[in-house]
Amino acid sequence: MPQAVAYAIDSPTGRFARTTITRREPGPTEVVLDIAYAGICHSDIHTARGEWGSGVRYPLVPGHEIAGVVREVGSAVTKFAVGDRAGVGCFVDSCGECASCRGGEEQFCQGPGGTVMTYNSTGRDGLTTAGGYSTSITVEQDYVCRIPEAIDLASAAPLLCAGITMYAPLRRWGAGPGKRVAIVGMGGLGHMGVQIAAAMGAEVAVISQTRSKEADGLRLGASEYYATSEPDTWKSLRNSFDLIITTVSGALDPAVLLASLTVGGTLVDVGLPEHPVELNLRSLIGGRRNFAGSMIGGIAETQEMLDFCAEHGIGAEVEVISGEDINAAYDRVVASDVRYRFVIDTATFTA
Amino acid sequence: MPQAVAYAIDSPTGRFARTTITRREPGPTEVVLDIAYAGICHSDIHTARGEWGSGVRYPLVPGHEIAGVVREVGSAVTKFAVGDRAGVGCFVDSCGECASCRGGEEQFCQGPGGTVMTYNSTGRDGLTTAGGYSTSITVEQDYVCRIPEAIDLASAAPLLCAGITMYAPLRRWGAGPGKRVAIVGMGGLGHMGVQIAAAMGAEVAVISQTRSKEADGLRLGASEYYATSEPDTWKSLRNSFDLIITTVSGALDPAVLLASLTVGGTLVDVGLPEHPVELNLRSLIGGRRNFAGSMIGGIAETQEMLDFCAEHGIGAEVEVISGEDINAAYDRVVASDVRYRFVIDTATFTA
Repeated sequence: MPQAVAYAIDSPTGRFARTTITRREPGPTEVVLDIAYAGICHSDIHTARGEWGSGVRYPLVPGHEIAGVVREVGSAVTKFAVGDRAGVGCFVDSCGECASCRGGEEQFCQGPGGTVMTYNSTGRDGLTTAGGYSTSITVEQDYVCRIPEAIDLASAAPLLCAGITMYAPLRRWGAGPGKRVAIVGMGGLGHMGVQIAAAMGAEVAVISQTRSKEADGLRLGASEYYATSEPDTWKSLRNSFDLIITTVSGALDPAVLLASLTVGGTLVDVGLPEHPVELNLRSLIGGRRNFAGSMIGGIAETQEMLDFCAEHGIGAEVEVISGEDINAAYDRVVASDVRYRFVIDTATFTA
Repeated sequence: MPQAVAYAIDSPTGRFARTTITRREPGPTEVVLDIAYAGICHSDIHTARGEWGSGVRYPLVPGHEIAGVVREVGSAVTKFAVGDRAGVGCFVDSCGECASCRGGEEQFCQGPGGTVMTYNSTGRDGLTTAGGYSTSITVEQDYVCRIPEAIDLASAAPLLCAGITMYAPLRRWGAGPGKRVAIVGMGGLGHMGVQIAAAMGAEVAVISQTRSKEADGLRLGASEYYATSEPDTWKSLRNSFDLIITTVSGALDPAVLLASLTVGGTLVDVGLPEHPVELNLRSLIGGRRNFAGSMIGGIAETQEMLDFCAEHGIGAEVEVISGEDINAAYDRVVASDVRYRFVIDTATFTA
């Protein structure tokens, strides 16, 4: 069986260290990807540190923002050839037969095993899946996306989670010309949302805690920038936006966000807050507002997003790090000290 | 100034008693309606008993489900003639110029005075508006709907609030052939929702506390009926409905309702619960579900609803009462002891 070099963590309080893992030989319809870059998503940190419950299988190799090049293809692979630029996101398998899978929303697979996540799940080989903090991965071709030449691989990696997380609700809820869209939080997710919403033709506002990222927000496509640390910001924003996507809703009162919507407007939460929020239903009824959730996207939509980003010259703004930097990078993500995504260069694993 | 006989309440703990009120002479574009029937909406009770706060102006004449016949028209009235069957709902005026009014959603008027409610607001004559528990009302023609001949006036009255409250979200969120729709609560609102959703072609389920209204639910158009008092009901309903409209959400855990939606499904709340609910955002994110509010509808949509009901032979199931019965009827509504709407016959006011 082929080996890969990886960075793994062995307990919630552990530190990432270099190790070797086994990847399966590709089946007839599988491809093996040489991983070039893997983004660090806040989900990786929540999982690695056990913040989302006890179901973590250590040693854990996180990473679901994967960009690389196809090294090998199974005998029946039709979608990829050796040398193709390709990406893998948050999941690597699903039943393919349920209503969600048939509807192109494999992330909501209702089959017996549900969606097989890229790490910390059980793969078709019976082993715990290991993610992108590694030098290679074997994946069924239907769960691999093509990365257009126009996007640098390092900038492309975060699109596989952060990009699609923002693209899907922006598309679904009609971001486009004549629509006012607010992106709450200017982090890994938010900085993608600003670019994508602007490229869709919407008028984009950033709502952030401070003005520290104002220049970046405007450069990436926003035409307005608001700091919640300033008095009366929320008051001034009442009835303002057709669509608000919050990447940080756990810490915010939804009533304040809902009140910033126009009549019939939609607030989308894409975060995974630890605690429930308190919601006064009058916030929804007055102005018939909607509070929606969204979670990544299906494979076809992820491909659509990659093509959209290529067409509009969009990519993640990244800080490329080595495998040895992962531990420090985690602390910096928690401190919101990254502009705007750490991407691990796997070439450093074997240097 | 013309007088009307009305039933008014003079304090949160008072009782309704017969009285006389003044109605203004119609302006050039106003009509005077002889009220035949007025429905008793739970909102009337909440307001009359001060359960929605201290802003109640006593003596209060409630009633915003009004059906009658045009008695008099102003000199420039074009939409109605004397003798026309007509109805008035929850509001009687708005600015007519804001985005909501221009968009046909006068119930969300953002003009200086906002939407002028049918009672307990300030009308264009500067007086506190008085509602349908009276023998006549003077209203601007643009806020009056035509009641088709096919609907009995007593059955039509509740359509002006209960009917439109259910029709608007059913229409907006796509109730129709191939869609599974659940109506939670089988009261004044719910029994209208079942009829309307079935007439739209949806597969309709009633979710009620007990089976006591099962026969009625099925007769009115539901194909399924579930009682939440029975064990495992909610468990059996997971991932079941494309659209759920709850008329009783204040008492229910939204997580349970949201889990009963299919992927991408929508839960609509049309109640006005007293207390906030606790919402775990994972309920929204997993399955990208929506939690929406809705509040009556605009005048054009209310007319559309009345025409739809006439076309499909739909009306409220009513228990007709006299003015002297109002106090007892309030207690029975609170005890859920009405099938399905009390309607006051104003002919009894002057008998």
